[in-house]
Amino acid sequence: MGFTLEEVARQVGGTVVGDGSVVVSGVAGIREAEPGQLTFLSNPKYERYLPMTRASAIIVSGDYAGRQDLNGKPLIVAENPYGAFARAMEMLGDPADAVEKGIHPSAVIAESATIGEGVSIGPQVVIGKEAVIGDGTVVYPGVYIGAGVQVGRDTIIRPNVTLKAASRIGDRVIVHSGSVIGSDGFGFAREGDCHRKVPQIGTVIVGDDVEIGANVCIDRATVGATRIGNGTKIDNLVQIAHNVVVGEGSIVVAQVGISGSTEVGRGVVLGGQAGLVGHITIGDGAMVAAQAGVTRSIDARERVSGYPAQKHSVAKRLLACLQRLPDLFRRVKDVEARLDRLEEDD
Amino acid sequence: MGFTLEEVARQVGGTVVGDGSVVVSGVAGIREAEPGQLTFLSNPKYERYLPMTRASAIIVSGDYAGRQDLNGKPLIVAENPYGAFARAMEMLGDPADAVEKGIHPSAVIAESATIGEGVSIGPQVVIGKEAVIGDGTVVYPGVYIGAGVQVGRDTIIRPNVTLKAASRIGDRVIVHSGSVIGSDGFGFAREGDCHRKVPQIGTVIVGDDVEIGANVCIDRATVGATRIGNGTKIDNLVQIAHNVVVGEGSIVVAQVGISGSTEVGRGVVLGGQAGLVGHITIGDGAMVAAQAGVTRSIDARERVSGYPAQKHSVAKRLLACLQRLPDLFRRVKDVEARLDRLEEDD
Amino acid sequence: MGFTLEEVARQVGGTVVGDGSVVVSGVAGIREAEPGQLTFLSNPKYERYLPMTRASAIIVSGDYAGRQDLNGKPLIVAENPYGAFARAMEMLGDPADAVEKGIHPSAVIAESATIGEGVSIGPQVVIGKEAVIGDGTVVYPGVYIGAGVQVGRDTIIRPNVTLKAASRIGDRVIVHSGSVIGSDGFGFAREGDCHRKVPQIGTVIVGDDVEIGANVCIDRATVGATRIGNGTKIDNLVQIAHNVVVGEGSIVVAQVGISGSTEVGRGVVLGGQAGLVGHITIGDGAMVAAQAGVTRSIDARERVSGYPAQKHSVAKRLLACLQRLPDLFRRVKDVEARLDRLEEDD
Repeated sequence: MGFTLEEVARQVGGTVVGDGSVVVSGVAGIREAEPGQLTFLSNPKYERYLPMTRASAIIVSGDYAGRQDLNGKPLIVAENPYGAFARAMEMLGDPADAVEKGIHPSAVIAESATIGEGVSIGPQVVIGKEAVIGDGTVVYPGVYIGAGVQVGRDTIIRPNVTLKAASRIGDRVIVHSGSVIGSDGFGFAREGDCHRKVPQIGTVIVGDDVEIGANVCIDRATVGATRIGNGTKIDNLVQIAHNVVVGEGSIVVAQVGISGSTEVGRGVVLGGQAGLVGHITIGDGAMVAAQAGVTRSIDARERVSGYPAQKHSVAKRLLACLQRLPDLFRRVKDVEARLDRLEEDD
Repeated sequence: MGFTLEEVARQVGGTVVGDGSVVVSGVAGIREAEPGQLTFLSNPKYERYLPMTRASAIIVSGDYAGRQDLNGKPLIVAENPYGAFARAMEMLGDPADAVEKGIHPSAVIAESATIGEGVSIGPQVVIGKEAVIGDGTVVYPGVYIGAGVQVGRDTIIRPNVTLKAASRIGDRVIVHSGSVIGSDGFGFAREGDCHRKVPQIGTVIVGDDVEIGANVCIDRATVGATRIGNGTKIDNLVQIAHNVVVGEGSIVVAQVGISGSTEVGRGVVLGGQAGLVGHITIGDGAMVAAQAGVTRSIDARERVSGYPAQKHSVAKRLLACLQRLPDLFRRVKDVEARLDRLEEDD
Repeated sequence: MGFTLEEVARQVGGTVVGDGSVVVSGVAGIREAEPGQLTFLSNPKYERYLPMTRASAIIVSGDYAGRQDLNGKPLIVAENPYGAFARAMEMLGDPADAVEKGIHPSAVIAESATIGEGVSIGPQVVIGKEAVIGDGTVVYPGVYIGAGVQVGRDTIIRPNVTLKAASRIGDRVIVHSGSVIGSDGFGFAREGDCHRKVPQIGTVIVGDDVEIGANVCIDRATVGATRIGNGTKIDNLVQIAHNVVVGEGSIVVAQVGISGSTEVGRGVVLGGQAGLVGHITIGDGAMVAAQAGVTRSIDARERVSGYPAQKHSVAKRLLACLQRLPDLFRRVKDVEARLDRLEEDD
């Protein structure tokens, strides 16, 4: 199945420069693309591959429209080439393994569960009492959906996911394999030398259009709810503790850990492996650098890095000073010698 | 199902201040609680919510007993309000999704396995040869219990857990979803440019009253056993390598990594995302701060932080010095200028 | 089943010192070994246990061959005692729980899938359309193998693993429990305040003789392939993002995170919890210390540590300076006082 560049450009919101009747039938990276495929350039790091790509056409930003070294190869010029490529992939990409419509006979589904229209439930799935699965949702093999869990419409639950604690999962959500939503929060009350388990009886509420990576853990609240806002995207191996709230449209990169009861605002970006202590607030639009250790609340739109995390501009200056520390030691030694001489002269 | 405050107070070891005949039928956080529910105040950060809570009663410490702004709302005064609330939740909380008693027909259980009295085994479970499941234990759907694994009494194995390597799991243990106990340790012997796998033939021994979070990995020993002591609590996404020993009553927070053969004492607290190198010893009662990188053995009751981890008091002083480093550069520059002038005068 | 020391020495490439007719029938660590077992000494930290071990024989390096305090206990002297012990374990170790040959009736296998000779497929396995399982491969219970996935020969897929995205897994690979290969990469294009999912349509290609730990995530490429080279070993809870390339014979320790499109060379060692940003190159034979934060490309054979990671020798010197920082503050204060006096005198 192919499309002309004109058709693709119309769909992705770009403009053809060159021959718009060229047909492309697939997409690929700038180095791997073959004739007949469409590629893109977004990160300038890959600019050097531009003249050599074997792709039949390239999605670029306006800066590249007039370049001579492209030998007249047709282009689609778009404001956001990566976004345009994403849309092109939706047209031209190869859909992944699908689950057949209907309920596989090996699935074990409680009689009191409610299964919507057009749902696909794969083999070896288990769905508990009074669970609700919305219309058009796909549940891959090996998934466990506990009693009282509610899954919205057109949501995709990948293989071997566990949903518990009467969690509520929104519409058009994707949960990748191995993730656990609704496991007990880590709460213990000290009694002498022992740690007595604090029962965790809250739930997890995941908004619409959320994506949750593989092997992520989102714990149920002690009481109340752990919440993930609409449109938030969570990468693999992230830990979200009990009673955490993450706002709408935030990005949580792989291996981040968010401790209990911390509230993360809207449009926040948490870099990979960053850690947040509990009971703090991260303001809307804040950015936390990768591996940062956040030990206090962060203002809206603040950018922080390092351990303990502080304003990125300050942290950068401290790192620059640190680099020059051996030199400073030498300078102080020199100063001391000069003083010795002056004092002797005195 | 409700209880009077007097009944609750008796059960949780507290004293009613106010009307002890008030009936509560549920528990909730201080902000979410509704009339008819019981809440608590433990962390002073939440004190500001005290006057506005809609809860019918509050568990507090003695400090709050005489406060005027509570409008005569009945209190349960307890030495440890969080611990008392935990016990109240056991009375009033809503139990999570349960597995029915007996063995689901879709479970595949080896004939030579021994299944105790009152055991619940959910759908799609697989139990291998000569495995032993103790009385009253609950095995959720999708769990794999390998050959020779022994699980104690009244233990709970959540969905999609993997237990291998003839591991021994104690009584009253909880293993949360996605965790893997008894996977091979990461052991290779270099042979020229290759890494030859060192067979991992040891086991894992988990004591009684241990809780293991979601997506945790505890590797089997190369030879001998990886051991987790009684009453130790392990949070989500923790990595425990082969031949590690963790003592009794320790707390291992989310995303911690413990390298091979390291021995962690009793009552130790390892903060989130901390990493420990292999072949070291962490003394009883030691505390390792979040994100610390521990590269040497730690004495009993020592508190360490930073990378490489050192005594917390020292690490804090260094961080304070670091903050003042730009100022130090300025002072040295100033000193140099003053010296220049003095030397000129000289 | 036992072997004489002479037989073991021949197999492991060592030389017996002492009575070569002694029979050993198992292996164990130096502290746990009992009479009848063979142990080894490789790490000098454990040298102190040498005189007390109850093992019937010990594998050591040549340095220990003449020691008096071993009371004439027979030794196998080998150049690489750990490697020799690994081979001895292959002779004497106890194989783990096995899956029976053939296909368990509860497995759900697409008609169009190709299953090789001598394959074992356990209960509750699901294998999708046109998947290929090579000869002699073992698929443990609860595994999901998606449509079009190709698994090589003599490969072992442990319980509850998920293989997706038409991934290609080589020969003699081991994938431990809970790992997810071929989940979507974390790619979003910003559209105003929203993040639009970039479809991930690439695959994952895993070479031969690779070992992948438990609860690891290896994402499929956006387009093209995420690649793991032959003989590379990956520990538990590692995150490998879309379009990453890892070369042959590399070692990736637990909880490492590698961001998108980064290329790791051959024979590289990435220490535990290290994090690598995206779109960089790590040269062949480079070593990244545990917890390092790598923010730029690394040359071949370079050793780096710290945050941001820099040459290990430089990072060590900076850490040493940092330790002496309080002293430097005192020295500068002292210098300032001396200057005050000199200026007064002036």
